[in-house]
Amino acid sequence: MKATVLVRPKAGILDPQGEAVETSLRQLGFPVGEARVGRVIDLDVDAASPDAARSEIERMCERLLANPLIESYEIEVQA
Amino acid sequence: MKATVLVRPKAGILDPQGEAVETSLRQLGFPVGEARVGRVIDLDVDAASPDAARSEIERMCERLLANPLIESYEIEVQA
Repeated sequence: MKATVLVRPKAGILDPQGEAVETSLRQLGFPVGEARVGRVIDLDVDAASPDAARSEIERMCERLLANPLIESYEIEVQA
Repeated sequence: MKATVLVRPKAGILDPQGEAVETSLRQLGFPVGEARVGRVIDLDVDAASPDAARSEIERMCERLLANPLIESYEIEVQA
């Protein structure tokens, strides 16, 4: 079962990569406001149902894919 | 106007970060197939319409946000 996980720095957490992107875009002449950079993880999960896949991926996020202290995550399971 | 850009390694392009995630998840006992890791960029763009924002962000992707040789990108503009 295919799934996509979006991991983002939480609001208020310093995001140096996002700041670098923001500065560079402005230097190139693009009128942008805030930019934040996170990770997208595409996964192939062995699960019996979309719900089972989702709860399995939640455990993966808590243990490895995200740092819950400073990052939030969003899980999309493809039907 | 808020937008989200997903930047992913193209199929066939080596993805060491994805391989590391895959190996680590298996070592933790999670039954996963392939894992691929890319970037998610949340942007605030100054544009007159969603279409204008999209074409502006396409130019940002070509110039800075992605490496079109080895990465593909997907743009979602929030209405």
